[in-house]
Amino acid sequence: MYTSLKEECYEANLQLPKLGLVLFTFGNVSAVDRQRAVFAIKPSGVSYETLTPADIVICDYEGKVVEGTLRPSSDTKTHAYLYKQWEAIGGVAHTHSTYAVAWAQAGLDIPVFGTTHADHTHRDIPCAPVLTDAMIQGDYEHETGCQILDCLTEKALRYQETEMVLLQNHGPFTWGKTAAKAVYNSAVLEELAKMAYLTLQINPATPRLKDALCNKHYERKHGQNAYYGQGC
Amino acid sequence: MYTSLKEECYEANLQLPKLGLVLFTFGNVSAVDRQRAVFAIKPSGVSYETLTPADIVICDYEGKVVEGTLRPSSDTKTHAYLYKQWEAIGGVAHTHSTYAVAWAQAGLDIPVFGTTHADHTHRDIPCAPVLTDAMIQGDYEHETGCQILDCLTEKALRYQETEMVLLQNHGPFTWGKTAAKAVYNSAVLEELAKMAYLTLQINPATPRLKDALCNKHYERKHGQNAYYGQGC
Amino acid sequence: MYTSLKEECYEANLQLPKLGLVLFTFGNVSAVDRQRAVFAIKPSGVSYETLTPADIVICDYEGKVVEGTLRPSSDTKTHAYLYKQWEAIGGVAHTHSTYAVAWAQAGLDIPVFGTTHADHTHRDIPCAPVLTDAMIQGDYEHETGCQILDCLTEKALRYQETEMVLLQNHGPFTWGKTAAKAVYNSAVLEELAKMAYLTLQINPATPRLKDALCNKHYERKHGQNAYYGQGC
Amino acid sequence: MYTSLKEECYEANLQLPKLGLVLFTFGNVSAVDRQRAVFAIKPSGVSYETLTPADIVICDYEGKVVEGTLRPSSDTKTHAYLYKQWEAIGGVAHTHSTYAVAWAQAGLDIPVFGTTHADHTHRDIPCAPVLTDAMIQGDYEHETGCQILDCLTEKALRYQETEMVLLQNHGPFTWGKTAAKAVYNSAVLEELAKMAYLTLQINPATPRLKDALCNKHYERKHGQNAYYGQGC
Repeated sequence: MYTSLKEECYEANLQLPKLGLVLFTFGNVSAVDRQRAVFAIKPSGVSYETLTPADIVICDYEGKVVEGTLRPSSDTKTHAYLYKQWEAIGGVAHTHSTYAVAWAQAGLDIPVFGTTHADHTHRDIPCAPVLTDAMIQGDYEHETGCQILDCLTEKALRYQETEMVLLQNHGPFTWGKTAAKAVYNSAVLEELAKMAYLTLQINPATPRLKDALCNKHYERKHGQNAYYGQGC
Repeated sequence: MYTSLKEECYEANLQLPKLGLVLFTFGNVSAVDRQRAVFAIKPSGVSYETLTPADIVICDYEGKVVEGTLRPSSDTKTHAYLYKQWEAIGGVAHTHSTYAVAWAQAGLDIPVFGTTHADHTHRDIPCAPVLTDAMIQGDYEHETGCQILDCLTEKALRYQETEMVLLQNHGPFTWGKTAAKAVYNSAVLEELAKMAYLTLQINPATPRLKDALCNKHYERKHGQNAYYGQGC
Repeated sequence: MYTSLKEECYEANLQLPKLGLVLFTFGNVSAVDRQRAVFAIKPSGVSYETLTPADIVICDYEGKVVEGTLRPSSDTKTHAYLYKQWEAIGGVAHTHSTYAVAWAQAGLDIPVFGTTHADHTHRDIPCAPVLTDAMIQGDYEHETGCQILDCLTEKALRYQETEMVLLQNHGPFTWGKTAAKAVYNSAVLEELAKMAYLTLQINPATPRLKDALCNKHYERKHGQNAYYGQGC
Repeated sequence: MYTSLKEECYEANLQLPKLGLVLFTFGNVSAVDRQRAVFAIKPSGVSYETLTPADIVICDYEGKVVEGTLRPSSDTKTHAYLYKQWEAIGGVAHTHSTYAVAWAQAGLDIPVFGTTHADHTHRDIPCAPVLTDAMIQGDYEHETGCQILDCLTEKALRYQETEMVLLQNHGPFTWGKTAAKAVYNSAVLEELAKMAYLTLQINPATPRLKDALCNKHYERKHGQNAYYGQGC
């Protein structure tokens, strides 16, 4: 019934190990079907080497299983909350990729230092603060979703423009119009995290990228008159 | 006679180079058979490229060879001591993986900075102090096992919960319910060591993970009401 | 009509992912035909996995498309300007390789610290300053080419001897007698950037390589009496 | 005539890219035939991808070509000098591997910090000082060999025990009883260089390994009563 949705989710999940973003089962990707108001997500703790499309679990926007015999990712309620709140996204990815996790553990936003970053977002990549003890002891994965949204709201970021966030002491969450785009953003974030790390090691006083160049690169790829790519 | 035990040990050893945890022969894995009170271990200095299941050596809990024509790993007595003392473990792994060795050489515990770490243990990964000269000049590999146990005792760590340790100036030892799990823990430790290293480079003042989040992640994977994985 | 030129450009582009210099589509290579005064360049935003020789776009020295149905790289005018100004070059490469970008973001020249560097150029690898706001808001990619030339002029560098440059806040551009040589230089630059980074981490007071050794290595490979290689 | 010698040299050279120790042609390995007083060495600047056993060049202990149509490595006279002076070595390797070069550029010995290092040598890996201008302008590659020998003499190191050295501002040279062992030592040196680098980043005050443990590990692998390996 959800064959093509499961297939999309499965293919996107397989990109995580291929792109070097996960060790063992440290990641998960989901893909949404807006018409049926459900999303497909990786089952919890299943190895990428044995995963099949039939293993993918279908859930509703509350994170309840609609179809599937396996338990969905332990992060399912975070995915569910993002789909419920952000109607324009089609996929969500979560990894524990090395450099992105290091920034998350350090509890710092990743400053925009160059055009590689500005090609994807003209803002620093935000690090949402660690959850309060009450949130952790409550509906933890749901609260994780709330914390991500609150962080974007507080920093006046639009989720259509900033498709990646760090959660302090945890790691990166990314999203996009499709599950494949969410995974693409996870790989970009990991590379930006590594570049920013090296930049500060070389020159701890590196200033942020100036606005004119930041906007130029973002606009040539995402603006009304964008001329990067094939326009399709 | 010990065909399946040798096979298990062989397969676990082959994971070390596959996971990028060893250069040449810098590592060894063993697997125990509790009923027969013996363990299988890699022969010393044999290349992973030429290793066969028949090369695996069978030893008793004193480290004496029970079956096999090759000399067992030079670290055999360390493995033997751990099997003798810790009845719930099924496998032991030892590597010289790069980042774990760096922490061991620096002589420092790896602080718990995030959920990737807390998913595996809610305590810092301990660095057992370097052996005394008397221990080194005595029964060195046996004393290495003693030092590991003493370290866990002193820090009030249970081996069932902290399945990894650094030995100062040497490198990591890990264990688990199976040889495969011991190898899994070696890979996790190497990743945690790299993440913690990067975290402190980005922010030298990074505090340890707060207890509520540390316990939450450990419990959701290992607690009575764990909901990570497929519960099998 | 431009079959062999497209093929040369295609092959050179494929070396970028093979050498680990690009993530996704973060790079482009071009190859010139001096007799026909055109160059072949990668189409914008097309994945290296699906790229075919037929996708390659042919442009003139103003960056206008002469043949091809796809939109050329967004950096086409930078390539065009370099071909127009530097008549002895046959190829240009641009990447966002990690360590070279880190130096570019840090806004620093890469000092010559050893013979690996001197084998390729006896000068520091220059970092051209970030473009002014007026240049960014004007004909940006054309101005990028101007900035590269101005930087070499100001530092009294000859493009025949220094075949690589960083552009501040952006990344590396390299060139050479062929497109393949330009790509070779991109890989060398990335390695030199990594080596210089590590050198300063180990010893922040490392002095530049002394002139005698710097010249010796450059001359034994590129001088009149060069004896490195097979002399062909 | 020198078929098996060329084959040995060829096979050892191919290990360099396989072990990740060279970019392009940045390395060379030689193998000696003591009975005929000649050695086989890689031709200069020939790609590892196209190299064949027939391309290997045979030279005498003065570095003069005895057989072969290609020009030998530009470092041939350094190899020749080491063979002439050290009668017990069977192979020499030279690379520009990243971390070893970084230490060489920093101009520092690599301190012995752990057992991975002590398993191979119980001394710091020496960094021979940069050549004087007179040496550079004289018979450069021959003088490079002299500088390596002088460094070992000054530090009272025996070449049979310390089979690796850094040359300041240049990179590593290693040797051993066979060409394969020389290459093995190049890979070990690169790993030790990386581990020592990381160790000092984590704890800049890390002391050297104490003598008892240093000697224990060296002796259990290389001493009269060695029990590492299969004793053959």
